[in-house]
Amino acid sequence: MPTFKMTVAYDGTGLVGWQRQAAGDSVQGLLESACAELNGEAVAVTGAGRTDAGVHALGQVATVALARDIDARAFVAAVNFRLPPAIRVLAAVEVPAAFHPRFQARSKSYRYRIWNGSVLSPFERPYVWHVPAPVLDVAAMDAAARLLEGRHDFAAFQGAGSDTPTTERIVFSSRVVSEPATVATDAMLIAYEVTGSGFLRYMVRTIAGTLVEVGRGSRSPEWLLEVLEARERARAGPTAPAEGLFLRSVGYEEP
Amino acid sequence: MPTFKMTVAYDGTGLVGWQRQAAGDSVQGLLESACAELNGEAVAVTGAGRTDAGVHALGQVATVALARDIDARAFVAAVNFRLPPAIRVLAAVEVPAAFHPRFQARSKSYRYRIWNGSVLSPFERPYVWHVPAPVLDVAAMDAAARLLEGRHDFAAFQGAGSDTPTTERIVFSSRVVSEPATVATDAMLIAYEVTGSGFLRYMVRTIAGTLVEVGRGSRSPEWLLEVLEARERARAGPTAPAEGLFLRSVGYEEP
Repeated sequence: MPTFKMTVAYDGTGLVGWQRQAAGDSVQGLLESACAELNGEAVAVTGAGRTDAGVHALGQVATVALARDIDARAFVAAVNFRLPPAIRVLAAVEVPAAFHPRFQARSKSYRYRIWNGSVLSPFERPYVWHVPAPVLDVAAMDAAARLLEGRHDFAAFQGAGSDTPTTERIVFSSRVVSEPATVATDAMLIAYEVTGSGFLRYMVRTIAGTLVEVGRGSRSPEWLLEVLEARERARAGPTAPAEGLFLRSVGYEEP
Repeated sequence: MPTFKMTVAYDGTGLVGWQRQAAGDSVQGLLESACAELNGEAVAVTGAGRTDAGVHALGQVATVALARDIDARAFVAAVNFRLPPAIRVLAAVEVPAAFHPRFQARSKSYRYRIWNGSVLSPFERPYVWHVPAPVLDVAAMDAAARLLEGRHDFAAFQGAGSDTPTTERIVFSSRVVSEPATVATDAMLIAYEVTGSGFLRYMVRTIAGTLVEVGRGSRSPEWLLEVLEARERARAGPTAPAEGLFLRSVGYEEP
């Protein structure tokens, strides 16, 4: 019986996040319901990582072991048919039953999107953090972002109340880029692109909030090193809102 | 007292279209309510052209003549404050009271977006026509689209029940382009980009529906010339759905 590795995209607007909750629609819960229906019995879906309420995914990875034989192509069509359109299984491949999407993940890539301009595009409302003013200094934000590359203790960027065994992570790439807005305004779309070995809870959003402090000119890029070294959440900037965050992809070693 | 030329973007999802209707939210109606509130008395908003229910705009143009003195920047902020976030005034400039956004328009540009692939991105649902299969022949669609450039009688591409004095229009540019999908699938995002002197009702959507027939391989690019020459709506392809259509911009002569 097949175990499938699924690539899943979702619009997190109105969802309670990846993980099944007592109330509200979760991605995991909706995937499990859809898979159970076509499996003929209850089934567990395991994700590569949690995303919080309102966070989006372009390429979340999850596995499901089915009790029924079905080929990957038919599985994708059948599960999408049973999912709301805000969640789509983009692809599925058969993997060994021992494959674990979280333990075997080697990297994750996130994008955090910021709309910098007074008027927010109607089409970007659910997908950005709207920072109306001032015009952010993208070069300074990028310089600050690059200081996070490497192996560091990211305790300063971890949400309160987390209890992971270690707060050390490796950030492979950490960059800020910008492009002109998609509608005719003087707004800019700024994206923080980060790839790392793994991320602490709220880490990307806290980094984004901290980089915006640098972009506003309230802090220098080098302040990021101070924050890192302090290892105290209170030293970093605010947690940026969920709606700007996208889980882009999860990387695995080639089999 | 100022007359403002506004550039307006809107997400047409759930709106009844540009024009005020007996029931439902129209862009014109919502703009008039917002402007009336800040004007202190009822006021008319005139658009460069109507868009149908569900059609989007990146750069619609409209005018309003106010009874109260207010500068353009304050006007933009005040009117946006009174509009739902699905409608945004991107910019406003003062124009002579005699300026008419429809009569003085020299060109309009539209984009029609098609999602060609089995799985539709959750983020594109309200903004594309989903054509799951077959893989459309973009080169053939582009060749067909180019045959429409020039001055022609577009009667074949006009919605039933229209009564315009003439169905002749000039199409300055008519092209089909494609780009890879924004999520990791084998889907393609295909866009029909057209600029013309003016457009008949449903003209862009009927051309899009006709181009997809060519893309499917059911018809050759040259079929477009036959359809044009026949001047009968029945000869063209189906009217493509509203949600894929964007009014991009309206062109005026430099003052």
